[in-house]
Amino acid sequence: MNVITTVDPSNGRRRTTDLTETDETRLAVLADEASRAAQWLSGLGRPGRADLLDAIADALESRRADLVATAQSETGLSHPRLDQELTRSAVQLRMFGDVLRDGGYVEAAIDHAADTPLGRGPDLRRMLVPLGPVAVFGASNFPFAFSVVGGDTAAALAAGCPVVVKAHPSHPLTSHGSGAAIESAVRGMGGPGGVLALVYGEQAGRALVGHPVIRAAALTGSLGAARAIQAAIDERADPIPLYAELSSVNPIVVLPAAAATRGEQIAEGLFGSFTGSGGQLCTKPGLAFVPADPAGDRLVEALRERVASAGGAVLLNERIRDAFVERAAAFERAGARLAAQPEIDPGAGFTVAPVLLEVDLPGLTSEIADECFGPLMVVVRYREVAELDAVLATVPPSLTGAIHSGPLDDAGQVRRLVDVLVERSGRIVFDGYPTGVRVSWAQHHGGPWPSTNSVHTSVGATSIRRFLRPFAWQDAPEWLLPEELRDEFTGIARRVDGRWEPAHP
Amino acid sequence: MNVITTVDPSNGRRRTTDLTETDETRLAVLADEASRAAQWLSGLGRPGRADLLDAIADALESRRADLVATAQSETGLSHPRLDQELTRSAVQLRMFGDVLRDGGYVEAAIDHAADTPLGRGPDLRRMLVPLGPVAVFGASNFPFAFSVVGGDTAAALAAGCPVVVKAHPSHPLTSHGSGAAIESAVRGMGGPGGVLALVYGEQAGRALVGHPVIRAAALTGSLGAARAIQAAIDERADPIPLYAELSSVNPIVVLPAAAATRGEQIAEGLFGSFTGSGGQLCTKPGLAFVPADPAGDRLVEALRERVASAGGAVLLNERIRDAFVERAAAFERAGARLAAQPEIDPGAGFTVAPVLLEVDLPGLTSEIADECFGPLMVVVRYREVAELDAVLATVPPSLTGAIHSGPLDDAGQVRRLVDVLVERSGRIVFDGYPTGVRVSWAQHHGGPWPSTNSVHTSVGATSIRRFLRPFAWQDAPEWLLPEELRDEFTGIARRVDGRWEPAHP
Repeated sequence: MNVITTVDPSNGRRRTTDLTETDETRLAVLADEASRAAQWLSGLGRPGRADLLDAIADALESRRADLVATAQSETGLSHPRLDQELTRSAVQLRMFGDVLRDGGYVEAAIDHAADTPLGRGPDLRRMLVPLGPVAVFGASNFPFAFSVVGGDTAAALAAGCPVVVKAHPSHPLTSHGSGAAIESAVRGMGGPGGVLALVYGEQAGRALVGHPVIRAAALTGSLGAARAIQAAIDERADPIPLYAELSSVNPIVVLPAAAATRGEQIAEGLFGSFTGSGGQLCTKPGLAFVPADPAGDRLVEALRERVASAGGAVLLNERIRDAFVERAAAFERAGARLAAQPEIDPGAGFTVAPVLLEVDLPGLTSEIADECFGPLMVVVRYREVAELDAVLATVPPSLTGAIHSGPLDDAGQVRRLVDVLVERSGRIVFDGYPTGVRVSWAQHHGGPWPSTNSVHTSVGATSIRRFLRPFAWQDAPEWLLPEELRDEFTGIARRVDGRWEPAHP
Repeated sequence: MNVITTVDPSNGRRRTTDLTETDETRLAVLADEASRAAQWLSGLGRPGRADLLDAIADALESRRADLVATAQSETGLSHPRLDQELTRSAVQLRMFGDVLRDGGYVEAAIDHAADTPLGRGPDLRRMLVPLGPVAVFGASNFPFAFSVVGGDTAAALAAGCPVVVKAHPSHPLTSHGSGAAIESAVRGMGGPGGVLALVYGEQAGRALVGHPVIRAAALTGSLGAARAIQAAIDERADPIPLYAELSSVNPIVVLPAAAATRGEQIAEGLFGSFTGSGGQLCTKPGLAFVPADPAGDRLVEALRERVASAGGAVLLNERIRDAFVERAAAFERAGARLAAQPEIDPGAGFTVAPVLLEVDLPGLTSEIADECFGPLMVVVRYREVAELDAVLATVPPSLTGAIHSGPLDDAGQVRRLVDVLVERSGRIVFDGYPTGVRVSWAQHHGGPWPSTNSVHTSVGATSIRRFLRPFAWQDAPEWLLPEELRDEFTGIARRVDGRWEPAHP
């Protein structure tokens, strides 16, 4: 059996672990356990699953010091960042608990039997039910919040779906430790094995999505990873949904009045947003459109100063480091000018220096408008706001778009740019930065291809919808209906005979 | 240009029409018009689109006599059935109008800026927005309700998405007439061309889903058709969702106490359900599990008598007729006994005699448990209710499952069978029949593969969700927000800071 190794990106040191690649025999056992755990999860009911999510959050926080230290040694991300990310995971789990207790997410609807223009209509009752066991592919860049204890797992468990996580090879020990935290919470509630399981190794990941028990897959990763997983899914007799979050350029438009009135502040914001976490965030702004005027010059100069005096960033692994270096060179070959890059001693690890590039708008090629994962941003200098609509329509659709404007910017032009950004993204940010995704009810984290492959979100209350399917009961006797669909139940908001009825808990 | 022909299935006569296959040049024009029409539809707002749907319903009904006569000559379906189907289409359009006026379908949510455990959270506002132009593939078996003026079109227009319909080759003139009704309604409201367009020919259908303007496709049809369309979609640079409703066996379980107390009534219900509309309904029951006891014998005998004295059914086209005859023979070769089939003169058209087959439970092969489109049902005789769970788990997942029980049937056994049917379908019917799908808020018409390829519905209020995508506005100025997301707006129910707030119109 192949032993799993882990690498410290700060020094490049590789260590062997006690973990091994998951083989087909082991996968079959895990799948069987997951299948049986589905009944236990469903039997817990909404309040029981809410308690489970709270218990998982507690278990995470009780192991905070160990988990953060392990993640730091495997990812090179900073302690404060990882500490906050663990908090984010716990907040996310507890938030899904709130979503479960609220219960509106099941979209309960009751149509009583009635005379209709097409004759007597039967009694119909609809709600969302769990899809079944879910495969989650942990992401490299969020060892907690988009990995074993991340949003996909939280949403699937909330939905009532057991989870089998394919551990990301860049943080196997963090994955193992996170899995142990979840297991201890499940055990504490008297639950069985199989509510959450982990598999290791690329082959195990492909076999996982091919397994008949698995009903959906979720991935935050590269286009290449998504293609490989989709190819494995395409070999199934029955297709299953793959919810994939892939690649995003996240353009930011700075309009002239904004540059004139708060250029310095915007320079600071842009710098923090594109270099934070080593620029390894799916919402990192890759393109900033800045006016080619004196205010724009001052903004770029302020940005340049910050970048030139910045420290190095430890990237997550060797492949990401190599891709970053290669992509940055390719952008320069394609015509982008190096505006600033500090001198950094890369050491033995995967450290790089942040890169600020600049290009005049006519020189913005599709190559330069592509995603570069890591601390790189391209400043695009434009002469006329009127040129921007057409250019933005050539930037690949993204998770986000952002616009900075001032009171003196033309409202009609702002409106037109907003229309383009709405068309080509999933979230538009005004006078701010796309990084730092709020976990809340109204969040949407998803956008047109290639930023995601679906019309769903992977962050926020509605991300649970990915792991549910609608079901309708026709003329069912009361005793066979889920509690939420019985006439006298008032614990959740429901649509009854076409009208919303609020909960009366 | 290839001229489109139409065939009268009652006599096999082929006529040429004034219609021609749509070529690439024409498709490019239609796509461009659809793209521009999206703005007009979106600009109408929810109340405006509701008025448009009402106007389309009125236009349909004002052309009722012509449309029904045309459909009759192209499909061989009966006048009363087509008359009711046109009513159903109109009801469906008006119902989506109600959904738009209600507005809850946009899932509006507002999270005001707030302090969170992760720092200051921005103001976030989320709602569903139109996906863009949609390709709809008309179905053969519902020339109105699942074709040009069907549920997919109604849902897409309601969502704010222009529609390009690939006309089904079995009813081109009905398609053309239906399209003209929609166009007249659009014109009556001052709308542009491109809100609804039609294309003719298989090649045009493939080119349609490959066109960059098209953002989603919907199909009710065969697995083969879905594969061809998916293959065309897979050639796109950007994938788009295909919502496909494919094939369904719709098992019905009759438990011993039900057979004993109302066997005669069930025989009548089964007969009507499997022979209605020539058995050409996606919810037609293909398998009926009946006890191998004296009450079951009486039920089957009553069914046999009805089938033996039934008239012939004109099937929709030659291909469907041939497939029916072939499939029925294959079921017999696989071991099903012919229980009843009337002598029918097939004439020059595509008329067939209904077929009742019977098989003992141990003889139920996967071949016999497959769908046969047309008036054929297999009665499966079982000795023990306890045998049924395992057998139902081998029947292909379906749109529906049904169970007939009586007070003397064992509640534990009923519960177990219900669990299996829920797992393997999208709607469970108690003491009734799956045909006659109610168009309402709580309906769900969709099930696990191979009945559909998605977790969405193609009937009912929630089918509109297929043509929408979520979008989030972060810290947006009030004037740039959609009306539904402004603070003072109270016209629709919304989730504000996590709590449901009902509409106060």
